[in-house]
Amino acid sequence: MSDKLIIFDTTLRDGEQSPGASMTRDEKLRIARQLERLRVDVIEAGFAAASPGDFEAVRTIASHIREATVCSLARANDRDISRAAEALKEAPRSRIHTFIATSELHMEKKLRMTREQVLEQARLAVRFARNLCPDIEFSPEDGYRSDPDFLCRVLEAVIEEGATTINVPDTVGYAIPELYGDFIRTLRERMPNSDKAVWSVHCHNDLGMAVANSLAGVKIGGARQVECTINGLGERAGNTSLEEVVMAVKTRRDYFGLDVGIDTSQIVPASRLVAQTTGFVVQPNKAVVGANAFAHASGIHQDGVLKARDTYEIMRAEDVGWSANKIVLGKLSGRNAFRQRLQELGVELESESELNAAFARFKDLADRKSEIFDEDIIALLGDESVTSEHEHYRLLSLAQRSETGERPCARVVFAAGEQEHHAESEGNGPVDASLKAIESKVRSGAELLLYSVNAITSGSTESQGEVTVRLQLGGRVVNGVGADPDIVIASAKAYLSALNKLHSQAERVAAQG
Amino acid sequence: MSDKLIIFDTTLRDGEQSPGASMTRDEKLRIARQLERLRVDVIEAGFAAASPGDFEAVRTIASHIREATVCSLARANDRDISRAAEALKEAPRSRIHTFIATSELHMEKKLRMTREQVLEQARLAVRFARNLCPDIEFSPEDGYRSDPDFLCRVLEAVIEEGATTINVPDTVGYAIPELYGDFIRTLRERMPNSDKAVWSVHCHNDLGMAVANSLAGVKIGGARQVECTINGLGERAGNTSLEEVVMAVKTRRDYFGLDVGIDTSQIVPASRLVAQTTGFVVQPNKAVVGANAFAHASGIHQDGVLKARDTYEIMRAEDVGWSANKIVLGKLSGRNAFRQRLQELGVELESESELNAAFARFKDLADRKSEIFDEDIIALLGDESVTSEHEHYRLLSLAQRSETGERPCARVVFAAGEQEHHAESEGNGPVDASLKAIESKVRSGAELLLYSVNAITSGSTESQGEVTVRLQLGGRVVNGVGADPDIVIASAKAYLSALNKLHSQAERVAAQG
Repeated sequence: MSDKLIIFDTTLRDGEQSPGASMTRDEKLRIARQLERLRVDVIEAGFAAASPGDFEAVRTIASHIREATVCSLARANDRDISRAAEALKEAPRSRIHTFIATSELHMEKKLRMTREQVLEQARLAVRFARNLCPDIEFSPEDGYRSDPDFLCRVLEAVIEEGATTINVPDTVGYAIPELYGDFIRTLRERMPNSDKAVWSVHCHNDLGMAVANSLAGVKIGGARQVECTINGLGERAGNTSLEEVVMAVKTRRDYFGLDVGIDTSQIVPASRLVAQTTGFVVQPNKAVVGANAFAHASGIHQDGVLKARDTYEIMRAEDVGWSANKIVLGKLSGRNAFRQRLQELGVELESESELNAAFARFKDLADRKSEIFDEDIIALLGDESVTSEHEHYRLLSLAQRSETGERPCARVVFAAGEQEHHAESEGNGPVDASLKAIESKVRSGAELLLYSVNAITSGSTESQGEVTVRLQLGGRVVNGVGADPDIVIASAKAYLSALNKLHSQAERVAAQG
Repeated sequence: MSDKLIIFDTTLRDGEQSPGASMTRDEKLRIARQLERLRVDVIEAGFAAASPGDFEAVRTIASHIREATVCSLARANDRDISRAAEALKEAPRSRIHTFIATSELHMEKKLRMTREQVLEQARLAVRFARNLCPDIEFSPEDGYRSDPDFLCRVLEAVIEEGATTINVPDTVGYAIPELYGDFIRTLRERMPNSDKAVWSVHCHNDLGMAVANSLAGVKIGGARQVECTINGLGERAGNTSLEEVVMAVKTRRDYFGLDVGIDTSQIVPASRLVAQTTGFVVQPNKAVVGANAFAHASGIHQDGVLKARDTYEIMRAEDVGWSANKIVLGKLSGRNAFRQRLQELGVELESESELNAAFARFKDLADRKSEIFDEDIIALLGDESVTSEHEHYRLLSLAQRSETGERPCARVVFAAGEQEHHAESEGNGPVDASLKAIESKVRSGAELLLYSVNAITSGSTESQGEVTVRLQLGGRVVNGVGADPDIVIASAKAYLSALNKLHSQAERVAAQG
């Protein structure tokens, strides 16, 4: 069996399924590029048949990524599989990942199909896909809760049809490490053709054991691919965390004896990019990528760490990309220095006019903030005025005041397409007043699900505030992000950014089997 | 072997060791009361000998908690153990938890002691403790990385001396489930007197496997106590999450076959209280207590959930205390309704004047916010004016304004003891200006490590903002929290609250062995 563990990242597909984590095509491309720098083996870029927007995102990533295999999910039917193949056309290495549920509960309640129907559909789908692409992954959805006899029949059939990777999802996060490992080992031992495919694990964290389950699937079960996401992003309690799996395999190489191709120094930058893009914060006590992951507080521990680093540290912060904030640029930095720093950060802007817009935002920020950190640059790239010159709603100016004992009020001037709106409102606070002013003209009727602010850099009150606003309207949930040294302006930007997403987002096709 | 799994909560001891998570005595008492409502078996209330403040916190909790066993940590020396016993005097059920490191690395580099010296000190410490308290727990620090032969000798000796619980810490979060389970089973099998003590697990989450390791220690190793914290709070990547362990044992009762005494409907309230008190946010994709833990986004999953709930859900949100926000009180609610709601929330104020102060804050809030939720009430109890009438710094009034193209400015009036300060400043934003105004008079020189805002309730822009400010000064790290519908006022309150902690906090004794 191979000594290489394949890292399959599904941040852009299963991760994006988190309520509120949906991303634009450009955001997905930026994350895909970071995943390539991280050297993941497979990037699951989306679910091409789910909507025109999803198709476009997969197609764009497929045409920009050179090293990693690009994968699209597809239900086990010809239309989905054709769409996936079409979206992947430009990729040097591509994979179609097709699935159908195999547990009694899912077959009966969701698919309303018999066992024989499911077996036949799985077989036909893989046969069809294999004619379009040499690299085919098959997942029996809710596999871990499926009858092993039936599962063996399905998996044996799809390997016969040419599936090259067999993935065993614990769709609902129900597994226990030793049971999940034994489950996969038993399947592999019972199937005569099991060695014709690479086995893969896909776990969810509902009981907090996704990482341990995945690694038991590898060590006990013999799997050689782990499906995971940055920061453990994903529906409910999320997916297996890429950073935890990778660091466990590296730190406990004595036990696992496996190689991973990941450039671990790109882990923290990837974590930050995904958190900033989705607005999903990483808690401080998160393994590997949490702000406290390498910090020590108690007197005993500090003393121990001073005397010998490995008394309390099994990993080094710098190995996963933690480094001190560096002052990279300031007011006097020119366009070339800015462009060079973008290149060092791995950011590629699509056009010269985007670079100009970003540089203008940078100069504007440098006028108000003396030290510009890498995080500030990444935040300003998220600004609407940089990424999309043609957004519908754009903030033009804002004035607000509040005073104890008086009702706070705000005046907001913003563009909606060609039209300029002047809006005023009172509110419970200046943020409330600003958002109410905008809403008084837009009348979106959206419900505010979440409002949060984080300082982009620490160590100074001059930091930019990064505001995330999550809105819900008619079943759709979008996140808007805005950054500015003025928290009220950042809030207005975030609200307009969310409104832009509601304005432009095509409704996703309700995916049905 | 017993079928009861003992839940030992160490949120107030190991959890509090997180940089920035230190809590006041009153905050600890409030959390201890919630832990009692949650029906944990053992509350580790602190480390009595670490500082006078820690002693006082343990003593206060010991004199208020009636049902749970109250425990104090103590190094393996007579002074620490005496202090622990003294602090625990009033508790109906008490435990002394003493520890000494047993790994070669820790003995040589940190303790600078030989094996024989460590063995002797452990034996003497337990003998001394047993004379003061019938319930003695012993932990070999860094036990999982210790030589099993030596560890067996130490543990056998301390059981001989009367230790009733033996805890095996994976201090650095290095373990793998099957290895950790085997490790404990081997120790138990090799020691002739192992059945004289309850075995316990204590894991850290550095590689994301604390929960799985703990449960392997239970299932494979035969441990019957799990040490854990609410939200997995703790140094670095934190401790084992109480909520994940409890829900795993309940959800997979088919496998574990164990009873836990926890009232799971108190899990989410406990999680919120700890997050609000420490300022450590819970990420949305956190198992059990994350905002998304029970949310579904993708079309496929929504469809499945509609057709049959258990296709994608293995736990029910209401079982762990998630419930819709209820409008509990409004502008017209009187003092009795307010007092009754506090009782229902399990909040006990210490005096009539505290109740009056809280009610005044409530009326003030109800003037500005039409619907008052439970979360609002909990937040206002955290307000300085309620919990401590005699805080040094108190906000009196604030006025601020900002306008695009102009420099934001703020005027803050606050009390410092008897003195009233009128401060003005400009800044990058209204928050920056307000904090700079305060700092211009206080001149604390503290460094701002973290600034974050979360809306206390969702669904409306009228929600209060809850601001957390983390300051560092001369090696001390404190959190200040402030809540207000006006985010700038909430920020000023949070900053003053952090300054109050710096002002009053006695330096913790650097705990040395």
